[in-house]
Amino acid sequence: MVTPLFKEIRHNPLLWLLALVPVVFAAQTISPAAHTLLFLLSIAAIVPLAALLSRATEAVAAKTGDMIGGLLNATLGNLTELLIALAALQAGQYVLVKASIAGAIVTNALFMLGASFLLGGLRHHIQEYNRNSARLQAGLLFLATIAMLIPSVLNQDGASSTAAKLTQDLSAGLSVVLIVIYGLGLAFSLRTHREFFSGAEHAEPDEGQWPLGLALTTLALVTVLVAFVSEIFVESLQQAATTLGLSPAFVGFIIVALVGGAAEMVSAFSAARKDRLDLSVGIALGSAVQIALFVAPVLVLVSYLIGPAPMNLQFWPGAVAMMLIATMTASLVTNTGRSAWFIGALVTTVYVILAMTLYLLPPRVQ
Amino acid sequence: MVTPLFKEIRHNPLLWLLALVPVVFAAQTISPAAHTLLFLLSIAAIVPLAALLSRATEAVAAKTGDMIGGLLNATLGNLTELLIALAALQAGQYVLVKASIAGAIVTNALFMLGASFLLGGLRHHIQEYNRNSARLQAGLLFLATIAMLIPSVLNQDGASSTAAKLTQDLSAGLSVVLIVIYGLGLAFSLRTHREFFSGAEHAEPDEGQWPLGLALTTLALVTVLVAFVSEIFVESLQQAATTLGLSPAFVGFIIVALVGGAAEMVSAFSAARKDRLDLSVGIALGSAVQIALFVAPVLVLVSYLIGPAPMNLQFWPGAVAMMLIATMTASLVTNTGRSAWFIGALVTTVYVILAMTLYLLPPRVQ
Amino acid sequence: MVTPLFKEIRHNPLLWLLALVPVVFAAQTISPAAHTLLFLLSIAAIVPLAALLSRATEAVAAKTGDMIGGLLNATLGNLTELLIALAALQAGQYVLVKASIAGAIVTNALFMLGASFLLGGLRHHIQEYNRNSARLQAGLLFLATIAMLIPSVLNQDGASSTAAKLTQDLSAGLSVVLIVIYGLGLAFSLRTHREFFSGAEHAEPDEGQWPLGLALTTLALVTVLVAFVSEIFVESLQQAATTLGLSPAFVGFIIVALVGGAAEMVSAFSAARKDRLDLSVGIALGSAVQIALFVAPVLVLVSYLIGPAPMNLQFWPGAVAMMLIATMTASLVTNTGRSAWFIGALVTTVYVILAMTLYLLPPRVQ
Repeated sequence: MVTPLFKEIRHNPLLWLLALVPVVFAAQTISPAAHTLLFLLSIAAIVPLAALLSRATEAVAAKTGDMIGGLLNATLGNLTELLIALAALQAGQYVLVKASIAGAIVTNALFMLGASFLLGGLRHHIQEYNRNSARLQAGLLFLATIAMLIPSVLNQDGASSTAAKLTQDLSAGLSVVLIVIYGLGLAFSLRTHREFFSGAEHAEPDEGQWPLGLALTTLALVTVLVAFVSEIFVESLQQAATTLGLSPAFVGFIIVALVGGAAEMVSAFSAARKDRLDLSVGIALGSAVQIALFVAPVLVLVSYLIGPAPMNLQFWPGAVAMMLIATMTASLVTNTGRSAWFIGALVTTVYVILAMTLYLLPPRVQ
Repeated sequence: MVTPLFKEIRHNPLLWLLALVPVVFAAQTISPAAHTLLFLLSIAAIVPLAALLSRATEAVAAKTGDMIGGLLNATLGNLTELLIALAALQAGQYVLVKASIAGAIVTNALFMLGASFLLGGLRHHIQEYNRNSARLQAGLLFLATIAMLIPSVLNQDGASSTAAKLTQDLSAGLSVVLIVIYGLGLAFSLRTHREFFSGAEHAEPDEGQWPLGLALTTLALVTVLVAFVSEIFVESLQQAATTLGLSPAFVGFIIVALVGGAAEMVSAFSAARKDRLDLSVGIALGSAVQIALFVAPVLVLVSYLIGPAPMNLQFWPGAVAMMLIATMTASLVTNTGRSAWFIGALVTTVYVILAMTLYLLPPRVQ
Repeated sequence: MVTPLFKEIRHNPLLWLLALVPVVFAAQTISPAAHTLLFLLSIAAIVPLAALLSRATEAVAAKTGDMIGGLLNATLGNLTELLIALAALQAGQYVLVKASIAGAIVTNALFMLGASFLLGGLRHHIQEYNRNSARLQAGLLFLATIAMLIPSVLNQDGASSTAAKLTQDLSAGLSVVLIVIYGLGLAFSLRTHREFFSGAEHAEPDEGQWPLGLALTTLALVTVLVAFVSEIFVESLQQAATTLGLSPAFVGFIIVALVGGAAEMVSAFSAARKDRLDLSVGIALGSAVQIALFVAPVLVLVSYLIGPAPMNLQFWPGAVAMMLIATMTASLVTNTGRSAWFIGALVTTVYVILAMTLYLLPPRVQ
């Protein structure tokens, strides 16, 4: 039964990194204080696990029909990001959770989108894609950015307990609203008006079907592995960042987002090269939307259960500004449904500017 | 001669609430301190008066030809809002005046537009409307938002008398500019380029013509009644809000705007159900534009004559942010000239988010 | 050989003002303290010199083929602005340099564009232009605005030396990024995808060819003259502004930008009247882009060599807000590729609002 899995591993060099998973656990047991080593090892181990996770999700989705498959992809598509954030949440590292949420939105909407346009555009003169789909995603991102902007702007000086309570109530309310609108958006694009979004939602053609049993087992097993490695990653991160001279803002925003999204990036970029830009745009903006309207609100609501204290949606103003810039850029750029290499260069440059700023930022400003 | 008026009242259940108008005056005479009762009664009385007022305006407009009719609709269309604001202005309640201006813009551009899309979309799969018209209105709203943003942003710390004078001069200048550009916009859409805006400007088909005499008499009489009831409304509002546990920001932004716009909402929603989205979008955005570029500047200029002190265009930053969000949302959403239920849900949700924030806001932040 | 030059001067009344150039130098020698006189004279002398400069640039470009010609226009097109800014840079007047950069972007993207639409629209009912080109320019402007926004927003309170160093490093990095993307944009519009931008890039039809020798000599000579007059202009400006009761912000933003761009405005407006709106939009947005992505970053990098201290990209927040407003307005308005007089009135009004604000602004707020 596991033949397809081994076949997959043999054909996908990225998955060879799976060999590092036991190495991480061994290193953690032997020298738990070697933070920088653990940090680098856990990054290198999460990337192939994330690739396997999204492959297993797709395999389950392929077996369960369009509607349930779409829902599965829409809820489990960013399972890696969710698991990393949950590990940080349990450790009470709310600043890291928020940085990784904002960073994932910005990285998906700017870097994944921009690099897809750029890589696709270097091979194809002009590429077209379904702009209805891109517009819907940009609209959802816009809504989520507004929802995250409000608690962040309202209570800058909010040290008082009234202000903290307002922010918490508001965050819980906004989270419910975001999840509801995310669900309605799925109903709209997968059910009532699916004919407008054709092309964008469908995943890769089956490269060798997985049996459902294998897919489900892989999904469960890899989820557990990612959860454990994420814990090591989160624990080692702060010390390692200091050693490597990276600001926490840069690590949370850029490194975590790139690690968590590595698997999806591989898919998006390869689709762009094959002139299947619908898929690339769907993955990039879809991921950003999912994190903004599903992962982030779920984390807020879950924090009431598992966190040391409830988490709110109040972000560092710079993070909100970056989400706003990412949303506006994605919205402006996908307006026409056409792309060429320079559009990709432009969007990627916006990301480079933000990353450069975060890299130069002194630690205290975060 | 008054037969059409009675016929109208018989057919429109909303107008049966007119019976409450004498009740308000009686209650005010008998127990002027029953603020909450007066507040609720005056709300219930303004709604049918507003409906009658807009019906009379339309009837006069229908009798006077397209050009003058268009002008009448464009200047008297938000007479209720103007009368409420004038009552608040004379009472020196500038915070309330400003909250009701900003609230009316936000409510019209988000709730009236969004709910029209939603209600229309629940009955019709896809609806189309004239996007030239929507774009013009969105452009005018954008201009007005900039004009209101500037004095609000410039002088946050402006306690000094120089700063106050600058803000006042700037507000007077901006008001003149806004009225001029509003007039030019009317000339553009009603005269020089009217062929691009066909469909959006025309009002309902005549449901029984009113004689001009009746229409003018109704207009004059109801205006006086609205003015009186508005005075009672404004007087009772602050006390009633405290009793009901509502923040003044919520009352000014949401309650006053919903009360003032109730009649237009009924028209806009019913047009959307009949797949006449041109009319709905025209009413929703047209009202927002009229308040931003005509009512608000007129209030600033009139305040030199009737207010205890001149009023300026300096808004609470949160109000400016909400106007900006409303303008951007309306602009993004009307870009294509097509709508479906989810677009309506999205726009309405933006409104719900803002309303929820205002509801939770502690009184002092306003 | 110089016949074409004299012919040009005879036919272009603007060039008769060249007679004022020696007058400026004479006045400067005779009464170097007559600041207001020198200020007015130098303005009147720069305008015809700028006209001659852009004529000579075009003449050289016409002789050197499309590719090199495009590059020449793209780098020397705003030579006047560059020379004025260099004079201010050497004098250590960084506030003036920055005000003139921001002012030139705002003036080109709002006033030059808006007045072109207005003047063209008063003669032609509807005008069309290449919206691909306008979109590219708007996208580049958007990127530049983000790049200028970041250092300005990050370090408001940055009096510390760490903050100053961060701002300086960031500004240098951003300048390099902007110049690179400007170069890529040229490669995109002049080389790889030039078929999408046809119409917008080509300059006026040759109104009497200039020999290359004459063109180059004129270019060199007039550059030197503009450099000298700019120095007198910058020296006299501050005193003259005080005497005339103008705030420095108004002078830097409005006067310098109008003086520096006078020659281009004449071309843009005359093209609009002739229904060649592609050319007008190209000049207006192209100039704004060139100043934002080429002149400004070059000034930052050059400041390491010639300024008393390196210059950064940290702007007064009001200037950033105005650049943002200008970019958004230009982006919204050029979205359709169609124009009518009211669009022009709208864009011009945004400029009038900003200019009015700057005029009323007290000196200290700058």
